[in-house]
Amino acid sequence: MSRSSTLTNVTALVFDTYGTVVDWRASVAAEGRALAQKKRIDGVDWEAFADAWRAGYHPAMKKVRSGERPWTTNDVLQRERLDEIVAEFGIKGLSESDKDEFNRAWHRLKPWPDAVKGLKRLKRRYIIGPLSNGSFFLLANMAKHAGLPWDCIISADNFHHYKPDAEVYLGAVELFGGQADRVMLVAAHNYDLEQARRHGMKTGFVLRPTE
Amino acid sequence: MSRSSTLTNVTALVFDTYGTVVDWRASVAAEGRALAQKKRIDGVDWEAFADAWRAGYHPAMKKVRSGERPWTTNDVLQRERLDEIVAEFGIKGLSESDKDEFNRAWHRLKPWPDAVKGLKRLKRRYIIGPLSNGSFFLLANMAKHAGLPWDCIISADNFHHYKPDAEVYLGAVELFGGQADRVMLVAAHNYDLEQARRHGMKTGFVLRPTE
Repeated sequence: MSRSSTLTNVTALVFDTYGTVVDWRASVAAEGRALAQKKRIDGVDWEAFADAWRAGYHPAMKKVRSGERPWTTNDVLQRERLDEIVAEFGIKGLSESDKDEFNRAWHRLKPWPDAVKGLKRLKRRYIIGPLSNGSFFLLANMAKHAGLPWDCIISADNFHHYKPDAEVYLGAVELFGGQADRVMLVAAHNYDLEQARRHGMKTGFVLRPTE
Repeated sequence: MSRSSTLTNVTALVFDTYGTVVDWRASVAAEGRALAQKKRIDGVDWEAFADAWRAGYHPAMKKVRSGERPWTTNDVLQRERLDEIVAEFGIKGLSESDKDEFNRAWHRLKPWPDAVKGLKRLKRRYIIGPLSNGSFFLLANMAKHAGLPWDCIISADNFHHYKPDAEVYLGAVELFGGQADRVMLVAAHNYDLEQARRHGMKTGFVLRPTE
């Protein structure tokens, strides 16, 4: 992200996390391979498995966003999705506690190689934190594991709303004192940036070719 | 705080902030003295001024807690209280912007001498953050100024409720995955610890003789 005059008045930078800060696909696939070795599971394409897991993300959140389902944190949605894809991929021999543990792979996602260094630099000038649909607990654990130097954590859990619901962007702005143009969303996904802009936030784009 | 067996399952430590982590009285008084010098204000006992400022804290929150007043963040409550005590102490010559700036003294409170070192040590093992009635923005700025190494920030702002309302304790537990006995409140005030304990949280007492 290049510095520009738009940053002069910004006090806080909030980051989309999955895809923007951490490499979820490689991280989840690596945990899948480690589990496969331990449990003698053969023939699974773990990158495809990670993609299938992630593919359940938006549909599950959509049910919550539409009100079809009451507020449910992402840890629970991801765990439900895991049951579906374990069956789809024909994986046998995983206990409930194996699956609970595998679900926590999302708490241990690895950062993109430039992420920690870049965040440390930005932290000197700005308050930095995620603004993510990931659960608060997940984001806190992820930061510990990945060494992400967040000043604070802002999750969909804080608003009982998922992005791109307006409540998430407006809620983050309120937490930082109510001036939308002093808060910047940094993300690799255009739908997210468009919503932030619509609510008066500044935006910064990070190119991640696989996102 | 001494380590004990009760900490074995704890994953997150949350801290009362005013009085427990930062020395609000000395910090606010020092900013008062600096302002007095700049504005040629004589004869004010700035420790007494700080105490008077703080004395408005619980009554103002009580109006919000009782529903007499809609949710109002502490930055606003403290700013209103400042108008009252500037008049009470007979202080003249402060503009609105001087008072806005003085109000931000609460964003720059200095830590007790043992706080940063202790928190850095605890951060190695636990997720650490404030659980405070201070505004989210205040807590984020305070951490920057004071070097408090929080992993996350949890404020009354996140729940639109002030401690000791149950929503704050239960809300914090929910953010950390819903198991109350895995979250410990560390505080210098017994009323706060009693409420945490009532909601199933672990508690740690820090002695601050002036609190």
